[in-house]
Amino acid sequence: MPFFRSANEVEHKAGVHEFDPVTQADRAGEEVIRKALKATYPGHGIIGEEFGSENEAAEFVWVIDPIDGTRSFISGVPVWGTLIGLYRDSKPFMGMMNQPFTQERYWSDGAKSFYSWQGSEQVIKARAATSLDQAILLSTGVDFFPQDSERAAFEKVQSSVRLTRFSYDCYAYCMLASGHVDLIVEAGLNIYDIAALIPVVENAGGIVTDWNGGDPSQGGQIIASGCKAIHEQALAVLAQT
Amino acid sequence: MPFFRSANEVEHKAGVHEFDPVTQADRAGEEVIRKALKATYPGHGIIGEEFGSENEAAEFVWVIDPIDGTRSFISGVPVWGTLIGLYRDSKPFMGMMNQPFTQERYWSDGAKSFYSWQGSEQVIKARAATSLDQAILLSTGVDFFPQDSERAAFEKVQSSVRLTRFSYDCYAYCMLASGHVDLIVEAGLNIYDIAALIPVVENAGGIVTDWNGGDPSQGGQIIASGCKAIHEQALAVLAQT
Repeated sequence: MPFFRSANEVEHKAGVHEFDPVTQADRAGEEVIRKALKATYPGHGIIGEEFGSENEAAEFVWVIDPIDGTRSFISGVPVWGTLIGLYRDSKPFMGMMNQPFTQERYWSDGAKSFYSWQGSEQVIKARAATSLDQAILLSTGVDFFPQDSERAAFEKVQSSVRLTRFSYDCYAYCMLASGHVDLIVEAGLNIYDIAALIPVVENAGGIVTDWNGGDPSQGGQIIASGCKAIHEQALAVLAQT
Repeated sequence: MPFFRSANEVEHKAGVHEFDPVTQADRAGEEVIRKALKATYPGHGIIGEEFGSENEAAEFVWVIDPIDGTRSFISGVPVWGTLIGLYRDSKPFMGMMNQPFTQERYWSDGAKSFYSWQGSEQVIKARAATSLDQAILLSTGVDFFPQDSERAAFEKVQSSVRLTRFSYDCYAYCMLASGHVDLIVEAGLNIYDIAALIPVVENAGGIVTDWNGGDPSQGGQIIASGCKAIHEQALAVLAQT
């Protein structure tokens, strides 16, 4: 938060995207989180966006993205979040998205999913929609698909839904888990982009898989839906391309 | 606010966009604002998105968009705002964007521009950037240009900048006025989409014109910049197409 909407140094980082800024806040945030985790759970592993992996073979491994949505962050828009996930035996177990400017927190304890804001806490549920042409679709943006074929597949889904919105990053999964939108289709995700969000969506009744219906826990091509009907319809559209 | 993130009825509205939802909140908000304005300033005119115009020839005319960013609103994302502008002798004079979930307010009294959040209030200033290839560009989305030629012109600007972000609506102009981003390029705007935002940008040192450098006060093709250098460079790119 001290870095949000303050002038900050932005570095270019090599990778899939043309412009993927890393702010001082990203590094400072991960340092604080790592330090707290190590002090409390010295035997656990950690995978972080900024400072790499350690003790990855442990039963419990934390997966950290200190600022997911750095492009929103540097644009001054509070649609970014701090992601902390916990894997147990290599599977998504618990997760949290925290937005310190709006003071919202979405999280899962491994059984249910919750939302808190200004002192109130509630259980959240994804919503059921009956057909894809009524769905609201979210995605980071058409320019963020590593392959042209992935972009084409996304655009086919986009042309099948009622409304598409871009640029929400981790916020998208929280809106899905709390029943405001129906579908997310993305590609090129890293493990730390999705780890914390899988339990939040799944324990709210939603579904997260890769584009073939398989394991999403390492990132890559990700599809998330509020219900099975939408998920199957969207997977079918992706399979056509 | 009572309607935000609650189930609400969404109607389709005829117009340029394929899907332009009007919520109950939009109508209820404008009714409250109109009632308050009429009680306080019975001689003033009003132009509103939902309930049309009255007394438009008055010296002072209020221009209201109760919820700008209805697509964000229905997706549960707090990147929408209530816009209230005041025209004097048909020219933008004062304006306000209020975001009740984050409790942010951006406004201009006709001389300076301000931002308030959680009890703190500060004067805001747009920032100067020297070249277009370092600029951050915001826009509602490539699918919101009424003409294909407008979309092509936008994409030419997009290919000239460092970073483009979509889906922020009125929030974009507030980020520009407070120095977080550099450029906004949009088309097909109505008077109530831009009226309140022109004084906020201009009195923060920014520039708002149409794509030919002319009067933006009735909407249409709008370009807004944090400084003259960026504005001129972007106008030149738009003129090429």
